[in-house]
Amino acid sequence: MDLTFDVLKTSEAGGRRAVLGLPHGDVQTPVFMPVGTVASVKAVPQDVLEVNGANGKGAQIILANTYHLYLRPGHELVRRMGGVHQFMSWRRPMLTDSGGFQVFSLKGLRKISEEGVEFRSHLDGGKHFFSPEHSMGVQIALGADIMMAFDECVETPATWERTRESMGLTHRWAERSKAYFEEHKTEVPWFEARGGRTQSLFGIVQGGMYADLRKESAEKMVEIGFPGYAIGGLAVGEPREVTREMIARTLEHLPKDKPRYVMGVGYPDEIEEYARMGVDMMDCVLPTRAGRHGLLFARVDGRIERLNIKKKEFAEDQGPIDETCACMVCQRYTRAYLRHLYAAQEPLSAVLNSIHNLAFYLDTMERVRGDLA
Amino acid sequence: MDLTFDVLKTSEAGGRRAVLGLPHGDVQTPVFMPVGTVASVKAVPQDVLEVNGANGKGAQIILANTYHLYLRPGHELVRRMGGVHQFMSWRRPMLTDSGGFQVFSLKGLRKISEEGVEFRSHLDGGKHFFSPEHSMGVQIALGADIMMAFDECVETPATWERTRESMGLTHRWAERSKAYFEEHKTEVPWFEARGGRTQSLFGIVQGGMYADLRKESAEKMVEIGFPGYAIGGLAVGEPREVTREMIARTLEHLPKDKPRYVMGVGYPDEIEEYARMGVDMMDCVLPTRAGRHGLLFARVDGRIERLNIKKKEFAEDQGPIDETCACMVCQRYTRAYLRHLYAAQEPLSAVLNSIHNLAFYLDTMERVRGDLA
Ligand SMILES: [Zn+2]
Ligand SMILES: [Zn+2]
Repeated sequence: MDLTFDVLKTSEAGGRRAVLGLPHGDVQTPVFMPVGTVASVKAVPQDVLEVNGANGKGAQIILANTYHLYLRPGHELVRRMGGVHQFMSWRRPMLTDSGGFQVFSLKGLRKISEEGVEFRSHLDGGKHFFSPEHSMGVQIALGADIMMAFDECVETPATWERTRESMGLTHRWAERSKAYFEEHKTEVPWFEARGGRTQSLFGIVQGGMYADLRKESAEKMVEIGFPGYAIGGLAVGEPREVTREMIARTLEHLPKDKPRYVMGVGYPDEIEEYARMGVDMMDCVLPTRAGRHGLLFARVDGRIERLNIKKKEFAEDQGPIDETCACMVCQRYTRAYLRHLYAAQEPLSAVLNSIHNLAFYLDTMERVRGDLA
Repeated sequence: MDLTFDVLKTSEAGGRRAVLGLPHGDVQTPVFMPVGTVASVKAVPQDVLEVNGANGKGAQIILANTYHLYLRPGHELVRRMGGVHQFMSWRRPMLTDSGGFQVFSLKGLRKISEEGVEFRSHLDGGKHFFSPEHSMGVQIALGADIMMAFDECVETPATWERTRESMGLTHRWAERSKAYFEEHKTEVPWFEARGGRTQSLFGIVQGGMYADLRKESAEKMVEIGFPGYAIGGLAVGEPREVTREMIARTLEHLPKDKPRYVMGVGYPDEIEEYARMGVDMMDCVLPTRAGRHGLLFARVDGRIERLNIKKKEFAEDQGPIDETCACMVCQRYTRAYLRHLYAAQEPLSAVLNSIHNLAFYLDTMERVRGDLA
């Protein structure tokens, strides 16, 4: 099997403790997946990622962005290097997105047709074209354990009519994605090396902020049939209650025996909440991006606080970021030192801040897994 | 004793294998000291520094810059944090420079008098004044195991007359440095905690590119009397033969039972050469600075090569930076991946490149120590 999903226990609220089996290893879910944009979780060595957070178990699965790797160093180069795992020396499972979200986020020229989307690179302005088939080809070359169908991300806010039209395109692209994937899925660089196991393709439910469209989209995706389902197009500026509502209304229509992945969320309390509702997988750039900007998550008297480490109040604070955190940063460095590194614009600042924030996210999921077990 | 120096063996060429005992631990010499400018060896966590290179023994002693820490976060803050060791969580020996070199390198307003030097901060243009007494006060607050006398670094090239005049000022400042230090040396933040052991002050030999002045300066420094001697004002643009000659002609006049430190050198082959001539300590920003610029040192067929990792030829190179290197970077990552990280301007690039280059320097000294043993 290319993917297995064993639900060990389900809570009354729907939260599930499960094991996701993939060619590069097992993943205990619910799981948070750090984002390694261009095959690097920014500023954090893979050696650290493997042991940081979750009682030393570290990150179980990480994400890489198809759009970024397509542009640089190029998916054909990554293929020749044996795929993205071998290229970046990450031995555990990986997931790639479809490139859709990045392409639709690009400012300037971007022309959408039934066939696909033409866009200009954010690096050099060069013209490129992504179709469902092309996204699949790129993702097969990269060779993550899980790859994502190519979808259109509708702008927000969008009317019901516009959202339904966009959703329709996403559905047709999902069918094309699956068709191409099924035909080419043995071309993954490590197919032989892993004894004929290959990647798995997930479908993405769209439907904007409309519960009826979310239902329609979920049902359509299930009809097409995938080994796992993502909920896309959320956390794009809507109020948090709406995000939660859309997730709840989509989960209802997704099969209980398949992994469910909410893309691009969120704050620590959000990922905890969604995991307890029955979301199995989440990813977000927040821990690393916030870290680079000096925003640190900490548990203070049971509440989650965001410390702005550049603040004067931390200048002589000899405590760790978070008294309850076992990460290598909290075990060794003071808030005073971290504030200094940030103020002096030292490269070590991003390294240490990112390590702690990632540990905070991974610990959060470890705790939720414990509660669900 | 605040400092001990036990020479275990001396080679025919004058190279010495010795142990330098300091309040924060023993240092096996000859030793290379990574530079931690503002209390951080750029991009490298202290945890890594402790185990990186030299058969896993890592950096034995690191340097911090008085000028930079004086400006940010300020030496009084560092004092209140328990000194620079505790501030940055570095438990092994440290050394601070006097601030002189940085101050004299500043472009723009800088007014030298017998009393000291007035300068403007490179950060905000604010006016500051450093005298020998002030430099000592700052360095005592920082609390490194070894601190340096405040010296004038003459511009290059400089005439014999100008060099001798500047040297005279350095000598008078050395006397004032020592006088202030002797009076205040029990004020180091960790004096009580280390059972009444304190810092040691090294004198700095100047004299530019004139052997007779080097001799005069060395003799004067020995007359003033220090537990260790540095050779300053080298590697400022002169040909390498001149550097070597000045070192050789200065070493002759320094006592054999005291540590000898050449400041701010150099390339790996230079530090090896000087160590074999009898230099016990060296520091340089080169391994980390070169790393950030994608320049990597490697041993290829016994020769030292500098790889420019951004070159196209490394794009698909699946080998490590250096086949003979045991560092965590060479054990795990390929040249192809490191080239990609550099090209994509990923923060991990500086981290991994610096770790390898530091290991290369520390390994070089480990090898020299083995040869001298
Ligand atoms: Zn932490
Ligand atoms: Zn190496």
